[in-house]
Amino acid sequence: MGYLKKIGHKIIKDKVIYKEEEQVKKIINDPKNVVEEMVSGLVGAYPDYVKQVPETLVVARSDDYDQVALVSGGGSGHEPSHAGFVGDGMLSAAVCGQVFTSPTPDQIHEAIKATDKGKGTLMIVKNYSGDVMNFDMAKDLAEMDGIEVDSVLVDDDIAVEDSTYTQGRRGVAGTVLVHKIIGGMAREGKSVAELASYGKELVKDIKTVGIALSGATVPEVGKPGFVLAEDEMEFGVGIHGEPGYRREKIKGSKEIAEEIIGKIKGEFNWKSGDKYGLFVNGMGATPLMELFILFNDAKAILAEEGIELTFSKVGNYMTSLEMAGASITLIKLDDERLRFLNEPVHTIAW
Amino acid sequence: MGYLKKIGHKIIKDKVIYKEEEQVKKIINDPKNVVEEMVSGLVGAYPDYVKQVPETLVVARSDDYDQVALVSGGGSGHEPSHAGFVGDGMLSAAVCGQVFTSPTPDQIHEAIKATDKGKGTLMIVKNYSGDVMNFDMAKDLAEMDGIEVDSVLVDDDIAVEDSTYTQGRRGVAGTVLVHKIIGGMAREGKSVAELASYGKELVKDIKTVGIALSGATVPEVGKPGFVLAEDEMEFGVGIHGEPGYRREKIKGSKEIAEEIIGKIKGEFNWKSGDKYGLFVNGMGATPLMELFILFNDAKAILAEEGIELTFSKVGNYMTSLEMAGASITLIKLDDERLRFLNEPVHTIAW
Repeated sequence: MGYLKKIGHKIIKDKVIYKEEEQVKKIINDPKNVVEEMVSGLVGAYPDYVKQVPETLVVARSDDYDQVALVSGGGSGHEPSHAGFVGDGMLSAAVCGQVFTSPTPDQIHEAIKATDKGKGTLMIVKNYSGDVMNFDMAKDLAEMDGIEVDSVLVDDDIAVEDSTYTQGRRGVAGTVLVHKIIGGMAREGKSVAELASYGKELVKDIKTVGIALSGATVPEVGKPGFVLAEDEMEFGVGIHGEPGYRREKIKGSKEIAEEIIGKIKGEFNWKSGDKYGLFVNGMGATPLMELFILFNDAKAILAEEGIELTFSKVGNYMTSLEMAGASITLIKLDDERLRFLNEPVHTIAW
Repeated sequence: MGYLKKIGHKIIKDKVIYKEEEQVKKIINDPKNVVEEMVSGLVGAYPDYVKQVPETLVVARSDDYDQVALVSGGGSGHEPSHAGFVGDGMLSAAVCGQVFTSPTPDQIHEAIKATDKGKGTLMIVKNYSGDVMNFDMAKDLAEMDGIEVDSVLVDDDIAVEDSTYTQGRRGVAGTVLVHKIIGGMAREGKSVAELASYGKELVKDIKTVGIALSGATVPEVGKPGFVLAEDEMEFGVGIHGEPGYRREKIKGSKEIAEEIIGKIKGEFNWKSGDKYGLFVNGMGATPLMELFILFNDAKAILAEEGIELTFSKVGNYMTSLEMAGASITLIKLDDERLRFLNEPVHTIAW
């Protein structure tokens, strides 16, 4: 924990361009306690959905169930991910790391132990080196307890290969769709092996690109992770402010949608009549109005491509604190995936 | 429309302190078309929930029903209010005015005509002079068509008496709770008169105070409606950036919660054991993390007061574009109100 956190801070220090006059405004008490107080507020607000595993930062389903447990999580600051997706039909527990910092193996291990119903656990992990390492160590610990554990790694962000915290591609908004689809399968009684195998194929069919109009400020750091000029945006930025692939003058929504859909098209070998889902996710500070405008443009472009949109979602689901920006995710759909996306669930935020 | 819009701009010009170097960054195309494109995106994303009434900016339920119609709306920029609350168990239609501008009587009239099932219409109107006037004119127009229409005026913001756009108190986040409770009653077959009478009593038991950490920028104006110094916040600010009652150095979440709960306590004559609902609403750009921290503090203060919290809600429901800030709403609850708050509905955003 201490180790990863130190790395995180070091990297932030190396990358940041500070504007000395910038000051953080946040509705918080002590920057050191934001995650603890957030978890307390979350379970205090929604006891019918979630409970806190005592003496941890693990948010678990408050109802009973009999299925493979699904555990996810990661650094905090992406709310409602992941705790907002804990509940019947989605996750069994979410582990809340410190802000933009991987949760410790101990915490993840606690989540696995607290949610195990004797049928094993599938972990859904966003592809960041710290997360991968710590979830893996937790798997080892849980296996020593005799709990079967496997994982699905989500790496839907096609913007860049390797990044500040990542080997390979980053896991971003598409993770929420993985929670939903695998959540539906798990509820139907599938085994750990079946879920892991299905999940690995599923992840290949989810692709995302994000943009940023402004940076986010980690409370303990107190300065934005990056600064964009007043007329500038960045394509391909990550959900922790990791660099994207191009900075330039701010563009219109249509041009943004065209560039992103073009990038994603390069990954999918799609043809007219193929069925996809379109998910426009907000990074935190961008008004829903703008997300709907971006969705509107993306949908029109996909219609020109002959894509049949069978699922849509628009909103702030995988955020980056108060970053302004958005991401567009496309998911290739068949009837089964669509059914799981549409099924009712009992969560705070889906 | 033109009339009200002109007034709106004039007031904004009078009030604004421009920083010349500030530039708006938004994911839009033409600032003049933001509402049209937003509505197109909204109904395009969620056809199972809502449809656009042709040639209007009215978002209506896409399913059929047989009850008193509930029509709300107002200026856009408060998303997901109000279109996100259209659907079974809540609104029959939401009229989307231009940004921070009252919808025209014609548009409201179209909403009433499109949703009328022969049982009359109840309008839920936030208390702004332009909204009150235009909804009232629409009522007159609809009555000439033989449709019974009554209205409930929401004025839950106790921060100030009279304001930039208001005689009396402003209608803010509490409106969403009115949509939900009256929506539940309407679904059960109550008459226009019964709903209007119940609604008028209900509104008296909902009180809100908001704070802002930064201003919002109307796309067509292109500059923030107000500017706060880097270490400054404002208590009592409205959802269009209307002035509050005090600006001062940014405070901690606990102190903010204490001040707001103290103000609201002055309105309710509460005693230990009374039942209330607590609703912490984000203004748009404030991370969910901070809203949960603020909720956590507000809940602790209410516990000290001996208040029994029987309902909680936390999230961005009545926003002010990309304003950073939040509001706290308390609603006095009995079993019936609580039942309506908890009933499942079919909307995009509840």
